Amino acid sequence: MAAKGISPTRSEDFPAWFQAVVKEAEVAELAHVRGCMVIRPWGYAVWELMQGQLDREIKRTGAQNVYFPLFIPLSYFEEEAEHVEGFAKEMAVVTHHRLEADPDSPGKLRPAGKLAEPLIVRPTSETVIGKSFAKWIDSYRDLPLMINQWANVVRWELRPRVLLRTTEFLWQEGHTAHATEAEAREETARMLEVYRDFAESILAIPVVTGEKPAEERFPGAVSSLSIEAMMQDGKALQAGTSHYLGQGFAEAAGIQFLDRDGERQLVHTSSWGVSTRLLGALVMSHSDDDGLRLPPRVAPQQVVIVPILRGEETDAVLAFVEELAAELGQQSYAGEEVRVLADRRDREAPAKRWEWVRKGVPLILEVGPRDIAEGAVMLRRRDAEGRSGESVPRDQIAARVPGLLEEVQASYLAAAADRLATRTARDVRNVDDFRRWFEGDDGDPSSGGFVRAPWSESARSGEIMEELKVSVRCLPFDQQLEQGSACVLTGEPAVVEAVFAKAY
Amino acid sequence: MAAKGISPTRSEDFPAWFQAVVKEAEVAELAHVRGCMVIRPWGYAVWELMQGQLDREIKRTGAQNVYFPLFIPLSYFEEEAEHVEGFAKEMAVVTHHRLEADPDSPGKLRPAGKLAEPLIVRPTSETVIGKSFAKWIDSYRDLPLMINQWANVVRWELRPRVLLRTTEFLWQEGHTAHATEAEAREETARMLEVYRDFAESILAIPVVTGEKPAEERFPGAVSSLSIEAMMQDGKALQAGTSHYLGQGFAEAAGIQFLDRDGERQLVHTSSWGVSTRLLGALVMSHSDDDGLRLPPRVAPQQVVIVPILRGEETDAVLAFVEELAAELGQQSYAGEEVRVLADRRDREAPAKRWEWVRKGVPLILEVGPRDIAEGAVMLRRRDAEGRSGESVPRDQIAARVPGLLEEVQASYLAAAADRLATRTARDVRNVDDFRRWFEGDDGDPSSGGFVRAPWSESARSGEIMEELKVSVRCLPFDQQLEQGSACVLTGEPAVVEAVFAKAY
Repeated sequence: MAAKGISPTRSEDFPAWFQAVVKEAEVAELAHVRGCMVIRPWGYAVWELMQGQLDREIKRTGAQNVYFPLFIPLSYFEEEAEHVEGFAKEMAVVTHHRLEADPDSPGKLRPAGKLAEPLIVRPTSETVIGKSFAKWIDSYRDLPLMINQWANVVRWELRPRVLLRTTEFLWQEGHTAHATEAEAREETARMLEVYRDFAESILAIPVVTGEKPAEERFPGAVSSLSIEAMMQDGKALQAGTSHYLGQGFAEAAGIQFLDRDGERQLVHTSSWGVSTRLLGALVMSHSDDDGLRLPPRVAPQQVVIVPILRGEETDAVLAFVEELAAELGQQSYAGEEVRVLADRRDREAPAKRWEWVRKGVPLILEVGPRDIAEGAVMLRRRDAEGRSGESVPRDQIAARVPGLLEEVQASYLAAAADRLATRTARDVRNVDDFRRWFEGDDGDPSSGGFVRAPWSESARSGEIMEELKVSVRCLPFDQQLEQGSACVLTGEPAVVEAVFAKAY
Repeated sequence: MAAKGISPTRSEDFPAWFQAVVKEAEVAELAHVRGCMVIRPWGYAVWELMQGQLDREIKRTGAQNVYFPLFIPLSYFEEEAEHVEGFAKEMAVVTHHRLEADPDSPGKLRPAGKLAEPLIVRPTSETVIGKSFAKWIDSYRDLPLMINQWANVVRWELRPRVLLRTTEFLWQEGHTAHATEAEAREETARMLEVYRDFAESILAIPVVTGEKPAEERFPGAVSSLSIEAMMQDGKALQAGTSHYLGQGFAEAAGIQFLDRDGERQLVHTSSWGVSTRLLGALVMSHSDDDGLRLPPRVAPQQVVIVPILRGEETDAVLAFVEELAAELGQQSYAGEEVRVLADRRDREAPAKRWEWVRKGVPLILEVGPRDIAEGAVMLRRRDAEGRSGESVPRDQIAARVPGLLEEVQASYLAAAADRLATRTARDVRNVDDFRRWFEGDDGDPSSGGFVRAPWSESARSGEIMEELKVSVRCLPFDQQLEQGSACVLTGEPAVVEAVFAKAY
């Protein structure tokens, strides 16, 4: 059976294993179009489940969905100085609005209709949304204004990696305007908490919450918060961000309101987002050397029934399987009907089983003539070591499925939480131990992880991190800095406790 | 009350009325970014309801959602000759992937990093999806392959009109591959029927179904089918299309399969789509001189309760209203909980009522101290002439709401069906009558409409249509051509029955 697993394995080559899982499970692939990706039906169905559940939570906070233009005039990027600095680098620029026959090369086309002002394909939409906020907001009665959009964005990538770093990706971006700094900061924290809860309870990915250090802030932000997840190779993946933008964008776009005293004031804005990177996080958090493992909350099929068909008994098996699928589909898990598929395709049963193993389906049920004779079905849990089957009486399986799904969801979360806890070093206190921790982990997915230690924020500490390709992922909210602590990197006085890691 | 209506009215200036409704109801607006639009929360919520219901039907046919890249290499457009002809005109062309400081103008940016091959922002995705189909399809077992994506597309518009003709718009595009022509044509017809049913049962817009004449086919298609709706000014709006593409795209992209006999064959493909134009169709089908009127199936709020607050009785009214909202929200209409809002905002009751009238909410309930004393609520139906209120006993209203919503939905469909029937002339038989029919309707929304008559397909008939700015919308499926009929335009022998109209 091992021959059907993923090659290479995690311990052999983690990055290559990741790419193989994404391909073999038919999640996504880098497209023939440079740096862009195709999200395939199985991967897109996972994304839709993520979208649906997160969208509900976003709306529950009071934000409303909208759609803003893909194109942003170049001049908008010149208005908020810091924002330009951060983004005015790798962006797709539209310069023409027509194709015409190339007179020099028969059958070829060339750009024509040069634009007076180039348009940028949005890397993020603060500037264009700010212009509308300025039109829509008049007085304090119009605040807070809270909107969100699900959209594609483009940031040119010179070294693209499927799901993790692609020129185009899908995301949601929320944008809000508030009367006061306190309210805007409260919104920023609220949305980070929405993301934290979503990552843990839906994706089964526990995260560290905190504030980004100054040099990793969103361009133009006063404060950037993030959730940071640990992948199986010990590296960090920033899984969601929420920014307090102060009044900089409001000033650039002229977003003012009349307060209760009739005074004109600038609003305070926030923005927050998660992207299809989360699909990459899902793969690297839970999958194994046999392929993808999906938490039931985001599994397009939570149960797949594979019939074992043999000659004359085929009809009886198929009838049994259809009836079983109908019964399971009436069960409910996490407030929805269980998603169940009876796989009737014209293929061999072992090939089907392996396909669903690779695709990460939480529960696989196998049913052949012998099982029917025994009044039982063979149950294989995707989270069980080796997935050895358990024969379950037919009349008990439906009632057991919701509980089994809950167990699988919980087991993935528990494994990821255990990893985050045991592979976060809290006792590294000098630069030699720090080096050993991070130099040991190259290519070996079972070593390395996060270091949580006092930090000085000094330039010298930055040089050491750069050399080791380590960064401060965040300054965790639950600060446990002891007075008088020394910086783990330089021995200088520490000013904050930080989480250090290599990162995607 | 009339002073709060839409200005101008439909009879004064239909196009200006349309723009005013779209603006006043906060559906959408043309953005500061040329030719693009912002879809505002109310309009986007309608779009989400349309999406959700259509998506379910699309998935029911067996198609699966995916996501393909926004960018298409220019060379792909050179491969399918007819397709190029049709599309290689007004498209956004990305030529650079970086911005850099402009040394000649401090503070300014300029494009840099010229691409070796320009990228086109997708106007439609046949070419790029074809490349993946070629990779994914191996044998007849992989067929049919049926995918769909919800995405933004760009077709440069020199004269943009909000919701109807914008440079960027949102749509779904389905793409399928089949082993035989018969299966591909069956799919093409099946999806048109999905669109017809969606337009009628969800949007309350009855349509004519038929085949487009040769000159209006999708570029590269063998056969294009469409649904055509009649707006209140008698003009046609193409509300959805489904194309049988033959083997042309398969040949260009090399989409082959091994058939059951082991022979390599080209697949037959189809594509089909509807867009945010449907929001424009919705406005122009049902709205009146007071604003938008939304069929309940796509109304973000189906019932809005407006409390009339007076001094000391405020708390009692608000408590009454909250309880009423909770009770209405437990009722079910069209298989879902009724969407109800208690509008507690700090504004005057008449201003609130007018806002919800303008936004097209099907049922408005007003509750003041007097109503409470009488144990009643004031019901205003958006479909009722003048919307004079009806006092309904409090203990009856919840049970009545689902039926009332059904009545409003049905009344919009009936009015639109009546218009389509009475304003489709079936007795126009010569060019003079034809001229009179179409020349009379300019600017007057109560005259004109469709003409259904025999057609010769001749070049001369085309010249007359061009002069009158009329086109053949479709060759309806239910052909009623009598043998020996003469072309309504030229008197030449007719070969087909056609539906003629001015069109958006």
